[in-house]
Amino acid sequence: MSTKRLSRKPTRIIKAGEIKQYYSMKQAIDAMERAFSSLSSGDSFVPLRNVSRLPSNDLLMLFKPAFVETDKRVAIKFLTQREKSCIMGIPVIQGVVFVIDSETGEILSIMDGEYITALRTGAASGLATRYFAGKDAQTLALFGCGAQGKTQIEAVACERNIKKVLVFDKNSKRAEQFISEMEEKLNLEMIFCKDTSMLAEAEIICTATNSTKPLFRRKEVKKGTHINAIGSFQPHMQELDPLLIKDAKVYVDQAEPCLKESGDFIKAKAEGIIDNNPIVGEIGDFYLKKIPGRESDDEITLFKSVGVAIQDYAVAADIYKFSLEKDFGLEINLFE
Amino acid sequence: MSTKRLSRKPTRIIKAGEIKQYYSMKQAIDAMERAFSSLSSGDSFVPLRNVSRLPSNDLLMLFKPAFVETDKRVAIKFLTQREKSCIMGIPVIQGVVFVIDSETGEILSIMDGEYITALRTGAASGLATRYFAGKDAQTLALFGCGAQGKTQIEAVACERNIKKVLVFDKNSKRAEQFISEMEEKLNLEMIFCKDTSMLAEAEIICTATNSTKPLFRRKEVKKGTHINAIGSFQPHMQELDPLLIKDAKVYVDQAEPCLKESGDFIKAKAEGIIDNNPIVGEIGDFYLKKIPGRESDDEITLFKSVGVAIQDYAVAADIYKFSLEKDFGLEINLFE
Repeated sequence: MSTKRLSRKPTRIIKAGEIKQYYSMKQAIDAMERAFSSLSSGDSFVPLRNVSRLPSNDLLMLFKPAFVETDKRVAIKFLTQREKSCIMGIPVIQGVVFVIDSETGEILSIMDGEYITALRTGAASGLATRYFAGKDAQTLALFGCGAQGKTQIEAVACERNIKKVLVFDKNSKRAEQFISEMEEKLNLEMIFCKDTSMLAEAEIICTATNSTKPLFRRKEVKKGTHINAIGSFQPHMQELDPLLIKDAKVYVDQAEPCLKESGDFIKAKAEGIIDNNPIVGEIGDFYLKKIPGRESDDEITLFKSVGVAIQDYAVAADIYKFSLEKDFGLEINLFE
Repeated sequence: MSTKRLSRKPTRIIKAGEIKQYYSMKQAIDAMERAFSSLSSGDSFVPLRNVSRLPSNDLLMLFKPAFVETDKRVAIKFLTQREKSCIMGIPVIQGVVFVIDSETGEILSIMDGEYITALRTGAASGLATRYFAGKDAQTLALFGCGAQGKTQIEAVACERNIKKVLVFDKNSKRAEQFISEMEEKLNLEMIFCKDTSMLAEAEIICTATNSTKPLFRRKEVKKGTHINAIGSFQPHMQELDPLLIKDAKVYVDQAEPCLKESGDFIKAKAEGIIDNNPIVGEIGDFYLKKIPGRESDDEITLFKSVGVAIQDYAVAADIYKFSLEKDFGLEINLFE
């Protein structure tokens, strides 16, 4: 029993706008490097996520903890997800992230989980771009103009000198709105593409859609392209031509969930085009120098991500630390 | 697909002090009546709680959801619990409760979970006292001067005209401090008892300790007494003399967890003093008129509770509703 009396720390409530204002994509990409290397080296602990499904209702509640012992922190992302109902103005997935002191059990921070999800997903693609994309890549193709699309562009533009973005979306109105918002923010040339005829210009491709079939063909992708694919996190979803997976050097965030959950792999395997494990390795293994990266200018590299709780951990723990230094967020003593 | 555009509701952050100030024990006891009747009638849904244990660390994280479909609300209690380390000034169990709209998935409220736990545990004993204690009971005996002890007294005093409280605690300093705080708050005569020689005066007994052996003997309890026992929520814990369980009319919050988790039942059964199921019924079954209550002035009634997530639900959903009416708590748009 310790006799040292501590005063309880307040909980810091941090809004999405504060994260956007104070915490940069560059910081998030660096946090992803720490996250994936700790995942691959076994220093982090990601227990099974818990899913509660309500009876006679389409709401799922997901509870995803992650822990890095050396940091003395736990982060937990809590999400609600509607499976069927679509309500205008209310996102299908909503949530928060907690940061907890693993020694005292104190809830140090509660922050918006929606922007963190987009931020860390973008940052993972940013890290893969840092590692695998051609050094001189200037043209990016983006499929999907949702919240994830924004952070995909931001992250890639952090790592390469992107000059042009080809934008693909089934909904042309949404794409136009997206382009006008992002052009102002990032000062990039953005072109809405009605079909994939210009795709061969792209040196980097990001896919961030809910598609259930391939968005483009293997033959439309030029030599040396790097692809970040973040849609297809469920078995019925698919963004990638199986032939592309077969021909590319494939990296993933975490092998087992990718192979089990992503329709990109499941469908390609069902068609007999790839074998049980077409993966070169996990992105953290590249950081740890256990696997090679790009070895020629001609090869196609592919980073496929379904998302791991350690990514939320890395960003949230970092934002909390940074919020203390820069004093943003609202301190509240919930227990008083 | 609905086309009705809704604006997202802000999250209402509610501190312990605001709950204490605005929400009464009477309201909490009424909420417990709704909670236990919905539990026994099957209208509520309490999924298995999820427990994450960190490696090489003594922290547990518990995630306890509950849902009442007709209310369109979910409540989730999230707790951290240290199993070994004791840190002065920091409670062993800390936590928050969320209230969620089960149709939209919005996180409507985040509130302190520590006071809610004490409040709902007290309120359950208050409800049992309302149902089962002698109408003219004036003397209460309390075992255990922790946070739970306070709400036990408050709740019993809500339901009966209590004039005297006999106070038992192994730590006499703690008991004195407790008495001076509670005398001021409740305007009751409170007497610290060094042994159980005065216990036979009590018409109601509340036990709220971490004891691992019986606190008093069957023969020390007078005829007609009502007992609320809330300690012994784990197999190694015990507050009650097995002979008392054998002789009393036993009610519980929920049968299965009580029989499986409480050492009061497990040890009494192991000693061969009670059989597999000594329980008359669940308190919600009494409300639903499925089982009898007190049938004579002489019988001893016992309410044993280990705690059910629906209790947190009932109080938290009620506090959220009331916070909108009375405008307390802090509104924050986390997602903005």
